[in-house]
Amino acid sequence: MLERKGSILSVREDIKVFDCTIRDGGLVNNYHFSDEFVKANYEACVAAGIDYMEIGKNVSPTVMSEDEYGPWNFCKEEDIRRIVGENNTNMKLAVMADVGRTIKEEIPLKSESVVDMIRVATYIHQLPEAIELIEDFHAKGYETTCNIMAISKSFDDELDQVLEQVSKSNVDVIYIADSFGSFYPEQINKLTEKYLTVAKSVGKKVGIHAHNNLQLAYANTLEAMVYGTSFLDVTVSGLGRGAGNCPMELLVGFLKNPKYKLTPVLKFIEEYIVPLEKELDWGYSVPYMLTGKLNEHPRPAMKARDEGNTQYVKFYNKLTEEYS
Amino acid sequence: MLERKGSILSVREDIKVFDCTIRDGGLVNNYHFSDEFVKANYEACVAAGIDYMEIGKNVSPTVMSEDEYGPWNFCKEEDIRRIVGENNTNMKLAVMADVGRTIKEEIPLKSESVVDMIRVATYIHQLPEAIELIEDFHAKGYETTCNIMAISKSFDDELDQVLEQVSKSNVDVIYIADSFGSFYPEQINKLTEKYLTVAKSVGKKVGIHAHNNLQLAYANTLEAMVYGTSFLDVTVSGLGRGAGNCPMELLVGFLKNPKYKLTPVLKFIEEYIVPLEKELDWGYSVPYMLTGKLNEHPRPAMKARDEGNTQYVKFYNKLTEEYS
Repeated sequence: MLERKGSILSVREDIKVFDCTIRDGGLVNNYHFSDEFVKANYEACVAAGIDYMEIGKNVSPTVMSEDEYGPWNFCKEEDIRRIVGENNTNMKLAVMADVGRTIKEEIPLKSESVVDMIRVATYIHQLPEAIELIEDFHAKGYETTCNIMAISKSFDDELDQVLEQVSKSNVDVIYIADSFGSFYPEQINKLTEKYLTVAKSVGKKVGIHAHNNLQLAYANTLEAMVYGTSFLDVTVSGLGRGAGNCPMELLVGFLKNPKYKLTPVLKFIEEYIVPLEKELDWGYSVPYMLTGKLNEHPRPAMKARDEGNTQYVKFYNKLTEEYS
Repeated sequence: MLERKGSILSVREDIKVFDCTIRDGGLVNNYHFSDEFVKANYEACVAAGIDYMEIGKNVSPTVMSEDEYGPWNFCKEEDIRRIVGENNTNMKLAVMADVGRTIKEEIPLKSESVVDMIRVATYIHQLPEAIELIEDFHAKGYETTCNIMAISKSFDDELDQVLEQVSKSNVDVIYIADSFGSFYPEQINKLTEKYLTVAKSVGKKVGIHAHNNLQLAYANTLEAMVYGTSFLDVTVSGLGRGAGNCPMELLVGFLKNPKYKLTPVLKFIEEYIVPLEKELDWGYSVPYMLTGKLNEHPRPAMKARDEGNTQYVKFYNKLTEEYS
């Protein structure tokens, strides 16, 4: 059994608040954020004491179209620098690499980039390729993470095997990702124990990336944190695909370390998120709750929301049709 | 330390799902629900296997005006029977008594009423009067609960004293009420231990009534439940004052007892809640988050929402003005 780390009033220096507003939010609008929006998000994060900001993905423009997707799907060095300059702040910058969409030969050395960390998102079956990417980025001088997706669908001891392999790599942080927003706090507790046991034995950290399908993103993040997880993913107002993520304002409002400031987050919300809420749809709703409960990808729920479909009984019946 | 009771897949026969949609939701619209709405809520609850439905308050019409408040603030016997007849179902009916607003001499004997349970809501300083009400209702044949409000503001050992007194009464259920939506799961865990220790020693049950200011209503309800709390308050779509309550659809979607059915809840939502959302405002938002974080009554947040005020920085600064 894990021990609680710290108390409700203590400061935990190991905690890193990780903003992924642009990266996860970009899944809602195909990364078409204006420079003004991204810069305001960056400045809010710096002022709020956020530890890392993930500014997008480093997908190759040879794989996805720059006509269809905005600049933050590709994160070219010149685009990032247009926002952050040399990033002379205490906040580190991250981008996410997608296995199969990021081409490692296109990624510069850390010494030539303003990016500090590359997070590698992988499905279980892509693990060998993910580890190739991690080793390449590590050798180039970046901090790295491995975000293993869709673990709620992993069978038998697959996850143990994955963790064993990842633990042998040079990765710095291993992420518990609740891709479908289907985990309950007591399951997050067990996962935290499993990940921390592996990670601690090889001197790595553990992170959590939660989704809000069951209104549990924040609670699951707290549960993982209380028992020793240190990298905590958040987005402003939970902006993110489907039911969204753990809201930055809730976590920053909770943490007792005086370096974290709530006011810059509130300012960004009132100036940039309130107008955005009229354009984009994200956050908890019944269709996302149903895909979360059923441990399914939110795709059908995203379609229902797009179509303004509130025939929830029909939607649920369709989701639960038998495939025996 | 408390032990977990049951597992994520087990059926706990002690659990009672308690609907307070009309009673807590009535705080949003001064109890002006149509008979059609209340009847549809009642029928949805019966079909969903809900154990108790609280149909309103039994405030005296001599204390609050029937011009200003709808029938479910008063719950006259004839109004209730117009909806439920003799309530020949497996679901029990409840009403809430407010200390200072309910006049015990106006409450009939259980044998003359279709109501099964009266819940007594009390602030700590009203406890002696609350116990008078509880004993009166108990003597008349009702099941009773004591819902101690605003405990997050109780000082020193006040709560222990209250629990000691309540434990000596004839009340059946003692409620953990998170009136300001300010508790974190680890605090609910400690409260659960405190309440259960007292309650078990005298053969009483414990319940939980959570608010969603910090997006923790459901998580806090699960936390209390996992460690042995058995009466679980919910409202459909979280309908309730301010940030609202623990959503029925989430809890019913989680519980493994086959008597609970999700489809009737979804049907009620699509037919009655979707239109209501265009008329009434409730549920998580930044102002409620801020009052919850500061452990304050949601009143200023309700005002901000009424006025469409999204100047969150100013609002937060005002809430945190010093009163030293």
